[in-house]
Amino acid sequence: MAEAARANSQLDRPLVCKQSEQAAGDRRLDFSVAAVLPAGGSGERMGTATPKQFCPLLQRPLISITLERFERVHWIKEIVVVVSKQNFELMNSIIQHYGHSRAIVVEGALTRHQSIFNGLKAFVVNQPHKSWLEKPEVVIIHDAVRPFVEEDILLRVAIAAKEYGAAGAIRPLVSTVVATNPEGYLDHSLERAKYRASEMPQAFTFDIIYRAYQQCTDYDFEYGTECLHLALKYCGTSAKLIEGPPDLWKVTYKRDLYAAESIIKENLSKNVCIFTGLQEEAVQLGCFLQEALQLVMEQVDMLKWSLNKESQCIQAISSGLYYNFICININNFDLPQEIVQLVESIEKAKLSALYPAVVTVVHLNNLEPASLCIRMEDFTNIRELAKKANQKNILVYRLLINYTQDMNEVQESAKQGASIIDSLTKQRSPALTGQLFVV
Amino acid sequence: MAEAARANSQLDRPLVCKQSEQAAGDRRLDFSVAAVLPAGGSGERMGTATPKQFCPLLQRPLISITLERFERVHWIKEIVVVVSKQNFELMNSIIQHYGHSRAIVVEGALTRHQSIFNGLKAFVVNQPHKSWLEKPEVVIIHDAVRPFVEEDILLRVAIAAKEYGAAGAIRPLVSTVVATNPEGYLDHSLERAKYRASEMPQAFTFDIIYRAYQQCTDYDFEYGTECLHLALKYCGTSAKLIEGPPDLWKVTYKRDLYAAESIIKENLSKNVCIFTGLQEEAVQLGCFLQEALQLVMEQVDMLKWSLNKESQCIQAISSGLYYNFICININNFDLPQEIVQLVESIEKAKLSALYPAVVTVVHLNNLEPASLCIRMEDFTNIRELAKKANQKNILVYRLLINYTQDMNEVQESAKQGASIIDSLTKQRSPALTGQLFVV
Repeated sequence: MAEAARANSQLDRPLVCKQSEQAAGDRRLDFSVAAVLPAGGSGERMGTATPKQFCPLLQRPLISITLERFERVHWIKEIVVVVSKQNFELMNSIIQHYGHSRAIVVEGALTRHQSIFNGLKAFVVNQPHKSWLEKPEVVIIHDAVRPFVEEDILLRVAIAAKEYGAAGAIRPLVSTVVATNPEGYLDHSLERAKYRASEMPQAFTFDIIYRAYQQCTDYDFEYGTECLHLALKYCGTSAKLIEGPPDLWKVTYKRDLYAAESIIKENLSKNVCIFTGLQEEAVQLGCFLQEALQLVMEQVDMLKWSLNKESQCIQAISSGLYYNFICININNFDLPQEIVQLVESIEKAKLSALYPAVVTVVHLNNLEPASLCIRMEDFTNIRELAKKANQKNILVYRLLINYTQDMNEVQESAKQGASIIDSLTKQRSPALTGQLFVV
Repeated sequence: MAEAARANSQLDRPLVCKQSEQAAGDRRLDFSVAAVLPAGGSGERMGTATPKQFCPLLQRPLISITLERFERVHWIKEIVVVVSKQNFELMNSIIQHYGHSRAIVVEGALTRHQSIFNGLKAFVVNQPHKSWLEKPEVVIIHDAVRPFVEEDILLRVAIAAKEYGAAGAIRPLVSTVVATNPEGYLDHSLERAKYRASEMPQAFTFDIIYRAYQQCTDYDFEYGTECLHLALKYCGTSAKLIEGPPDLWKVTYKRDLYAAESIIKENLSKNVCIFTGLQEEAVQLGCFLQEALQLVMEQVDMLKWSLNKESQCIQAISSGLYYNFICININNFDLPQEIVQLVESIEKAKLSALYPAVVTVVHLNNLEPASLCIRMEDFTNIRELAKKANQKNILVYRLLINYTQDMNEVQESAKQGASIIDSLTKQRSPALTGQLFVV
């Protein structure tokens, strides 16, 4: 579990790395920060039986992806997740499974505000399974269903909250807002420039938001939606509003799940590491593949294959920088031992505990045969391997590339091969594992 | 072109068919309706060079998908698309290519309102390339970048506009709306229940909206965003507000393109038609595939293969009901003549002029070989066919299924085959065409 958490934190770089974030990550804040993530919603608007915070994105619950984002931020201490009673055990098992070592589950209540209040109480009241949590100076409140929040905006709201008592992210309005009269006609429309959509994250000095909740009326708990409003109403604290990036969007409808999954797939497909043997043909083909893949991916690295403990290959795998590997070998269609070892190393590095990893085994076909013959035994062997790997969330595909004396031909084949690898990498389809693609 | 338009209109059923829509489609309105689609935006928020209305979804420009929706609605006469000067030719070529026979392109202006006004003028002023358009009683205004609008809401706003002079679709607010003070602090937050997001479509009696635009000030043209507001301000017409479905969302960010493409892929993957030969094995395998696919698709039909002009197969292809076909044959690995004919028929029916069609050729392998041998010639033949078909937007994949005497085994293989077909159908990857998948 600790290892999964480590892989988690290593994963930031390839998935979201931005200059501003790195800078923020290095910063030491001189005040303590914790977070509360209300995750008690029922997901009515989604039209699915599963509440949206538990919907799977590449087989992984949405809430786990949001938690991962928070755990990457080293200056946030505890992360309190508030869920409904019936999802309490589910949430604990997610935390266990994905190794979210800084998350604590708290039982929610009927309304969003009561749930947040319950989350805050965790810092002032003893929890049954957890010893006393230290009360933070600043608390960040964020929706579980906004998975793409970045460190930069978390830092900005936290610092503003420390300075002004309360702060929240805002975005320009996408639609005009209109007021309706009771009969359902247009009363007036708001001037778009004067208003903003209030988003998450928001942050407060702990005492202000806690005091506000202590004074809340039943009406506030029932109908209120806005923490910033409560801080203003009960503590006279006018929140600093901070323009956030578009990534703060909330997964609300089914289409948002599609979008979120596509974004994750895109992020996972940015880097690939090519391992080649020492044979000249393998290295040459590796170079051609690298050249072709660089046109569609951000980073394509190539290493000589070796599985010594100290080898660059093992370092590359455990760096968490790559979720995609290409392994070139010229022993046609055997089940190369390297593949077994590669799959084991990926599993050991806990990469696939978080997201599916892709391994494409490239075979060289230098026989120029009139017919392509594959022993059924080889088919079966690699498919058995692929099946087992699939259960560990590692997707193994095979690609056969014709290798002739004509380097222009080989280069052309490598281009076609790269486009197949690109497609397989972007789609991450478990149904196609173990298949042999031929160029 | 006319054929493409016909295929267009036939396509509604599988893609969006809803009871309410069908009922609406049969309705005859006793007043005339036209539409104006402003499509002059630059797509700044998308972060792409291409304005979002021209971004490709499955290789097809977004605007063409919105136009298709409007052309399905038989009671809407002309559809005026307003684009910027530099996109005028592009828009005309899109209309030509996708056979949008009821669309007319009009040149826009610098602001959204001026562009809409230009669109309206097309009904009262002679257009250079078009004879006089008849002025409609009601005009619907809709964003080019809201591609999933359905007939039902178009009908409701049109009828309400005829009755009340103006009408518009609204949606509940997703975020709380806040007012900021000039220093960037929270001034107050709006009570969410009292406000709505104003969306599109909107509809007006032609005279009201035209009169409103004639009175518009430069300030209105420059900063206004809301047609309903202008109708109220200049004609005293308070619009009827109509709660619309969530599909009315606007493609604003890159993530929305991802979502839109996923929705289209999902819609295209709902139905499949299986063609089998007369051989017992083919029919048996067809039944097993049908059984397995029915678990993941809405409609799975099976027909005996025949390409007589009057045959059910040809009718099925030209019905526009299916974008996915499975062809089962037991002549291993030859290039079956049926496939060539099937691809030709799909092309002839203009299906693939709109969206990529998927053909999976299923080969039976009943030889129980120790090794699988495929003549390179057969590989090359089918890949040549797949390559040519791909250029016509028809994706050809091949699937080899082991056929033994043990029916349980065959059924198990069919299940695995179905999961591969399902994956290929949902992903529609051109990079994988011509490949042979083995179960």
